[in-house]
Amino acid sequence: MTTEEAAQAALAECRAQIDDVDRRLVGLLNERVLVVQRIGEIKQTSGLNVYEPNREKKVLGNVLMFNGGPLPDEAAVRIFERIMDEMRTIQRDRMQEKES
Amino acid sequence: MTTEEAAQAALAECRAQIDDVDRRLVGLLNERVLVVQRIGEIKQTSGLNVYEPNREKKVLGNVLMFNGGPLPDEAAVRIFERIMDEMRTIQRDRMQEKES
Repeated sequence: MTTEEAAQAALAECRAQIDDVDRRLVGLLNERVLVVQRIGEIKQTSGLNVYEPNREKKVLGNVLMFNGGPLPDEAAVRIFERIMDEMRTIQRDRMQEKES
Repeated sequence: MTTEEAAQAALAECRAQIDDVDRRLVGLLNERVLVVQRIGEIKQTSGLNVYEPNREKKVLGNVLMFNGGPLPDEAAVRIFERIMDEMRTIQRDRMQEKES
């Protein structure tokens, strides 16, 4: 095997690892949506307006606490802001569906 | 336990589940960074300019393939665009550090 072939093989292996990580990431994001939907249902069924204004700050605080690197904290925060934004949209769309 | 207390307890349980999902998401994002850094090292050491222009499309294609819902596909794509953007920045900063 030439050096170039060895490098290509190592890259292919890395990309397969990334694909595996991404498969698990997608699984976890869907798991998160299910829990967010359950929260919406509890709020609607109970009639409670359980708004916790600091919840999003708490989530970002957890992310910083969980993050041992090498992902920079600022990058982790930006990724989770995107995730939370998408989850808010999903929850809002779902509430509107039920009301209409 | 009143209905309100039961709802509060159920919400607390959901939030604990989300925190657990987030802990695992942060772990996977860091795992992804490690592989991306390894790819950068292979490229530098081998001197190969192994640019695969369709790799990002491939990653998004995988995400759609992996996604069984309830996360909407468009939301999954937006989250992964953010993740890939952060990874590009990390890889670029690292390359600059090594060159300087």
